[in-house]
Amino acid sequence: MKILVINGPNINMLGKREPEIYGSMSLKNIEDELFEYSKHFEGVQLEFFQSNFEGGIVEKIQSTDAHGIIINPAAYTHTSVAILDALRAVKIPAVEVHLSNVNSRENYRKISYVAEACIGSVSGFKQNSYKMALFGLVNFLNE
Amino acid sequence: MKILVINGPNINMLGKREPEIYGSMSLKNIEDELFEYSKHFEGVQLEFFQSNFEGGIVEKIQSTDAHGIIINPAAYTHTSVAILDALRAVKIPAVEVHLSNVNSRENYRKISYVAEACIGSVSGFKQNSYKMALFGLVNFLNE
Amino acid sequence: MKILVINGPNINMLGKREPEIYGSMSLKNIEDELFEYSKHFEGVQLEFFQSNFEGGIVEKIQSTDAHGIIINPAAYTHTSVAILDALRAVKIPAVEVHLSNVNSRENYRKISYVAEACIGSVSGFKQNSYKMALFGLVNFLNE
Amino acid sequence: MKILVINGPNINMLGKREPEIYGSMSLKNIEDELFEYSKHFEGVQLEFFQSNFEGGIVEKIQSTDAHGIIINPAAYTHTSVAILDALRAVKIPAVEVHLSNVNSRENYRKISYVAEACIGSVSGFKQNSYKMALFGLVNFLNE
Amino acid sequence: MKILVINGPNINMLGKREPEIYGSMSLKNIEDELFEYSKHFEGVQLEFFQSNFEGGIVEKIQSTDAHGIIINPAAYTHTSVAILDALRAVKIPAVEVHLSNVNSRENYRKISYVAEACIGSVSGFKQNSYKMALFGLVNFLNE
Amino acid sequence: MKILVINGPNINMLGKREPEIYGSMSLKNIEDELFEYSKHFEGVQLEFFQSNFEGGIVEKIQSTDAHGIIINPAAYTHTSVAILDALRAVKIPAVEVHLSNVNSRENYRKISYVAEACIGSVSGFKQNSYKMALFGLVNFLNE
Amino acid sequence: MKILVINGPNINMLGKREPEIYGSMSLKNIEDELFEYSKHFEGVQLEFFQSNFEGGIVEKIQSTDAHGIIINPAAYTHTSVAILDALRAVKIPAVEVHLSNVNSRENYRKISYVAEACIGSVSGFKQNSYKMALFGLVNFLNE
Amino acid sequence: MKILVINGPNINMLGKREPEIYGSMSLKNIEDELFEYSKHFEGVQLEFFQSNFEGGIVEKIQSTDAHGIIINPAAYTHTSVAILDALRAVKIPAVEVHLSNVNSRENYRKISYVAEACIGSVSGFKQNSYKMALFGLVNFLNE
Amino acid sequence: MKILVINGPNINMLGKREPEIYGSMSLKNIEDELFEYSKHFEGVQLEFFQSNFEGGIVEKIQSTDAHGIIINPAAYTHTSVAILDALRAVKIPAVEVHLSNVNSRENYRKISYVAEACIGSVSGFKQNSYKMALFGLVNFLNE
Amino acid sequence: MKILVINGPNINMLGKREPEIYGSMSLKNIEDELFEYSKHFEGVQLEFFQSNFEGGIVEKIQSTDAHGIIINPAAYTHTSVAILDALRAVKIPAVEVHLSNVNSRENYRKISYVAEACIGSVSGFKQNSYKMALFGLVNFLNE
Amino acid sequence: MKILVINGPNINMLGKREPEIYGSMSLKNIEDELFEYSKHFEGVQLEFFQSNFEGGIVEKIQSTDAHGIIINPAAYTHTSVAILDALRAVKIPAVEVHLSNVNSRENYRKISYVAEACIGSVSGFKQNSYKMALFGLVNFLNE
Amino acid sequence: MKILVINGPNINMLGKREPEIYGSMSLKNIEDELFEYSKHFEGVQLEFFQSNFEGGIVEKIQSTDAHGIIINPAAYTHTSVAILDALRAVKIPAVEVHLSNVNSRENYRKISYVAEACIGSVSGFKQNSYKMALFGLVNFLNE
Repeated sequence: MKILVINGPNINMLGKREPEIYGSMSLKNIEDELFEYSKHFEGVQLEFFQSNFEGGIVEKIQSTDAHGIIINPAAYTHTSVAILDALRAVKIPAVEVHLSNVNSRENYRKISYVAEACIGSVSGFKQNSYKMALFGLVNFLNE
Repeated sequence: MKILVINGPNINMLGKREPEIYGSMSLKNIEDELFEYSKHFEGVQLEFFQSNFEGGIVEKIQSTDAHGIIINPAAYTHTSVAILDALRAVKIPAVEVHLSNVNSRENYRKISYVAEACIGSVSGFKQNSYKMALFGLVNFLNE
Repeated sequence: MKILVINGPNINMLGKREPEIYGSMSLKNIEDELFEYSKHFEGVQLEFFQSNFEGGIVEKIQSTDAHGIIINPAAYTHTSVAILDALRAVKIPAVEVHLSNVNSRENYRKISYVAEACIGSVSGFKQNSYKMALFGLVNFLNE
Repeated sequence: MKILVINGPNINMLGKREPEIYGSMSLKNIEDELFEYSKHFEGVQLEFFQSNFEGGIVEKIQSTDAHGIIINPAAYTHTSVAILDALRAVKIPAVEVHLSNVNSRENYRKISYVAEACIGSVSGFKQNSYKMALFGLVNFLNE
Repeated sequence: MKILVINGPNINMLGKREPEIYGSMSLKNIEDELFEYSKHFEGVQLEFFQSNFEGGIVEKIQSTDAHGIIINPAAYTHTSVAILDALRAVKIPAVEVHLSNVNSRENYRKISYVAEACIGSVSGFKQNSYKMALFGLVNFLNE
Repeated sequence: MKILVINGPNINMLGKREPEIYGSMSLKNIEDELFEYSKHFEGVQLEFFQSNFEGGIVEKIQSTDAHGIIINPAAYTHTSVAILDALRAVKIPAVEVHLSNVNSRENYRKISYVAEACIGSVSGFKQNSYKMALFGLVNFLNE
Repeated sequence: MKILVINGPNINMLGKREPEIYGSMSLKNIEDELFEYSKHFEGVQLEFFQSNFEGGIVEKIQSTDAHGIIINPAAYTHTSVAILDALRAVKIPAVEVHLSNVNSRENYRKISYVAEACIGSVSGFKQNSYKMALFGLVNFLNE
Repeated sequence: MKILVINGPNINMLGKREPEIYGSMSLKNIEDELFEYSKHFEGVQLEFFQSNFEGGIVEKIQSTDAHGIIINPAAYTHTSVAILDALRAVKIPAVEVHLSNVNSRENYRKISYVAEACIGSVSGFKQNSYKMALFGLVNFLNE
Repeated sequence: MKILVINGPNINMLGKREPEIYGSMSLKNIEDELFEYSKHFEGVQLEFFQSNFEGGIVEKIQSTDAHGIIINPAAYTHTSVAILDALRAVKIPAVEVHLSNVNSRENYRKISYVAEACIGSVSGFKQNSYKMALFGLVNFLNE
Repeated sequence: MKILVINGPNINMLGKREPEIYGSMSLKNIEDELFEYSKHFEGVQLEFFQSNFEGGIVEKIQSTDAHGIIINPAAYTHTSVAILDALRAVKIPAVEVHLSNVNSRENYRKISYVAEACIGSVSGFKQNSYKMALFGLVNFLNE
Repeated sequence: MKILVINGPNINMLGKREPEIYGSMSLKNIEDELFEYSKHFEGVQLEFFQSNFEGGIVEKIQSTDAHGIIINPAAYTHTSVAILDALRAVKIPAVEVHLSNVNSRENYRKISYVAEACIGSVSGFKQNSYKMALFGLVNFLNE
Repeated sequence: MKILVINGPNINMLGKREPEIYGSMSLKNIEDELFEYSKHFEGVQLEFFQSNFEGGIVEKIQSTDAHGIIINPAAYTHTSVAILDALRAVKIPAVEVHLSNVNSRENYRKISYVAEACIGSVSGFKQNSYKMALFGLVNFLNE
């Protein structure tokens, strides 16, 4: 079972970027921790991908052969219909992830186009949001 | 470490209620499964509470001595300022949980007053939403 | 055939409450008149229930074994998602009733969450609204 | 006591038109059934009128000598101020009728200009909506 | 100089219709008074037209050979793009007239599509609104 | 019979100000023309007042002993509740006047607070708007 | 294969009406050109209809035996629920046509009720819009 | 003269709850202080009531024999039509009270349904808000 | 302790102005009554100021040496950012006062810019609103 | 005459992507069919371009030497001001194309920024939309 | 070349007023610094004007003989149509200036009526905003 | 002191693109002029960057070692949360620049996400906007 983990714009800045909101771990740390955690699930393989380009994320979704997607679309959550369309086009089960609790922030961060093509979402638990998403997604795929 | 698990209106109908949206497990099943899962976390104690009354949920929050709260406010998510105020009043870390992915449903289900007083949220994974919330909350409290 | 007649908040004040809008009959009078009227329909049994609590109405809906529901949700018409969810959970055919013509009053009275789970609605005919609803509901159930 | 029954645009298509929403009876069937039903009310005379023209409905309202009006304005419910003004001009008690439960359909069908000039409304009971309206209107006129 | 005076839906009910808003004169009285008044302006000829049909008003505008139009679109003021388009098509100078002061009434009466194709408007002066409009239009045409 | 003619901000710039919208006459010319025209009405006396200050207009309205007011509130039409309140306080019949047809201009010019306290309005006829308003107001006062 | 071509209000004014927006051809010219063009499609018969009445268009749709409809609802595009309902009632495949590119004009022209009952739309190509619609409709019907 | 003092949800948490907004006095302290203060008004008797239940507040209002009501509806200020309806039903003069200045807080706290049935409101003075309300209410009742 | 009492536009018309809303006392009466009442508070000095000019109120606030401000901004409540900015600039504790209960009147009277710079507000108690505000303000300053 | 055919994000997924909405042809099939069709127009040359990147589409528009553009901006239709600006910058006549009838889908798909820089649009005819657009564009360029 | 520098309400409070937003210089300091800076531009003469009155600013604009205007309308930016109209009336090139970056503050400060009559704007640079505006305006006038 | 000058989509088209709005200079000309102007500021170094890709701009901001940023986000001003987040992540002082006065253009150009992360903005002065921004930014950095 292959899981693709997509991170959107500015997630590569983690650790340096507004740590009071996003935590002090780097993206590399988060990916390493998630990799360690994934060993609890037999036969689960992770692939990591980060892009600051809307089009780059769209094309990764189009070309993947993963069985499930964990996606933190970051700023594109609120502005991208193209990523929504890509997720709908491939029909791979996907989970939306956010480091911060987006529903308690600015109004424009309360809108999620991507949600319409996801089975569920996790937000607010910093690096743990990804682990929780993995737990939820693997269980979903196993059913 | 004591965790209070609150379920709001109509969650006591689970299994019978719109199973295509909310799954076929009863609330009792969900609580049992969560209890089993909680054994992974040393020293974690669960208390379960369900009420169909906004005031009942408010008073449970006011009177609890739990260290953390997992709350599925169900319909009151979208209409209750009183539950938000109760959570703010006690300042106990809380996680918002939903069985379905509320952000992909009717517009009035996209509004969450409760979110403003929660550290994070999990939605869309049916019974697993609670387990994921427990994972996130315990880790938060351990930090 | 059992029909549950639910009345929401402040309906127990009828007769005393703004008679120019709601008429001068008491709730007891209305129920008595409706009971008399119900004798036109063979085998129809009525149960009456009134509550000023949103949660109380939710629990009555959850626990009834009626074949049909006539509900005047009064003020909760415009604010309660929980009652809507309860009606959807039990899937018992329901009719929305109002004493006054709510669509010609304040803007916030033109919104009805409950309508989404009802087969029809009657409003504006004071005590007769209930009789008309009974007529419509019994015919619906007989089809 | 003379009652005018007005049907608006496309009601003449009943039976053929989206039967899952509007039922399978023709307008003629509905009128016949209503005529039968009207015999329960002593001295009540019915006149039937259907028009697809906003202006046609306006003029019928202006020229009638009926004591009460039952009107299903259909699509003009949501767009016609002229019919509202006509009802206000003649000051004949009127009841708004809909075959389907308009409040649970598209947003633009939740607006009713006509409601402001009606004593009450009935919606969602297909052909029975008219009978219920007749019951309500006759009782209103008898008071 | 020929002036066409168009009156929209329900204006033929004047005198009988809500006299506290629209005054107690009939349309015939208003037209007669306006005719008398028009004699102050040398060479001015009046033609009167009333219709309750949106399409009827559109066609009258299309086919007239008048040099100016005085139009009281009544309810169609607020709902008709077709009359706006007709006025734009013929490019005859037009004045919008209302018996009541529409800007101090219901919100939906504050919208005027027709205004976009008129040189000016007069409202609130009952039958005198027409005389004032004639004064303004004749002066405009004489410039 | 005394009529107060109030002109609001920038009307003192007439002739120089955007003549394609407001015409090429100065305020003095308009007042002179209106004075000439007022001779048609026996016993009518005019007083002219112009101010660029919202407070100045409020105080003029408060202190006048006129029997009627013609007011072109200009920019304050759309932003001043104070002038509305002043007109309501004195209860002198008032007519709103505009040189241009405000309903066919920018959206923020379509709002008129002042309208709620006026018997009628005239707009779009440049200097003639005032004459028409005088005609309407004098007739109103004579009734 | 019979195709009904419906034109709405003011389309009969083409050529004379705002030629910078709608072009300089008359409706007759457009129909003739479309007739010539239709000869490319074997077995295709055209019927032309124009009305300035909303009710007239509704009735034409109700009574036609055409296999497909090309409709330019003109001003009624933006205000008519009745035409939408008529198209839904007959379930004949329909194409919405506009001479100008309505999406780049006034905001109220960007709303189309009719679109909800059409398979597609063509706008902005003046007389060619109809030919393109015919091409699209015939191909749709042949599938 | 009997005055009923109603406090809504979470007011029983005062002192513990967000003291920077609501002050550090407990509800008991506030009631004691108000009782002391009430002695300035001859013949005034106070009854205190607090509930976290919307329905509980509704029923208290329905059943009281007080001559005046001081109500701090707290969170229900912004969401309860039922309390508004209860106040209207009993027609007892009522004053709305808030500890904080609600108009300078979150947008959803600027809406007050209850205000429509109150003679006045006091907000922002912590425990003193109640004393001021008592002063205003007693004077109102004495007139 | 010096308290400045500011009254905005049209308050100088009290007694004459819509007495059913604003009461029948003149501003002078209100000031006298408030002066009498102020004697209850040792060392409290009142200064009275009224202006119909937004700029006049701004400058009074800028130049005062008072320790507290009671302000009834009247119509400027709803339209003046300048008065809000003035209050923020001087940082003198201020209380917003209204004679009528503004939250139960027209929608545009429910907006208060000034509230954002005030510690509290009192509305609906006619002349007593000022006394209550004085009570609240003096107590605030004494803390 | 050179025509550039631009396809936006996810159009390269055609055939695989939601075939009930977008049809079962691949982009390659559509381009081939359009190429065949283009032979009807003497001297017309086609260039095909697809990109999932907003910036990629912007740069293609900037650098082309085509005489006309057919563009299916897909998801960017609703979110991209940059593509609109690019089309305006080059001033090459462009036609907007959609496979599905976007005006009958989700609300956010009814907004088109791109429309403001296009001469016309075609939507709803799957692969035929492109042919119709080519017909319209070539005729436009030939005039 | 004469440049008029206008400052609106509360700018005379600079230094004292919310220095964390507006800086710690007084208006006099800013004017002095700007005067020094203006010497870089040959032949440029400055005139300074400040008023807290909307009408005062309107009249200054009307009566100036300056070749360019630098205006910081402060609170009137967001509420004054009268100042916009004055700038349009005189047609003198004007630049809008703000000390703080208004677009990142409260929502009601993001609206600028004045912008519609200005060639450009500078905001966020405290006293330097004026110098930058002078640079931009002088260069504009020299072209 | 190093300053990065970023230009967004279609700015590379300057000179060719709508010169009546954006001026007739090319981007190269503007950069050269700005370079010349920068010599007035000792020790200031400029780096120029242009991209039509949202992701490209995000990455440039992430990777720069500049002390200040001048950014003309062009179309992305109104649609990009990602650029806003990038600016917040790096916390380098930034100035928003526009060639035209965006606040007096289309409504969708009045929204600026980027503004929330900028110290100030300059718009409307064509190539001089950049020089003014440099002046403001250098002075800000020197403080």
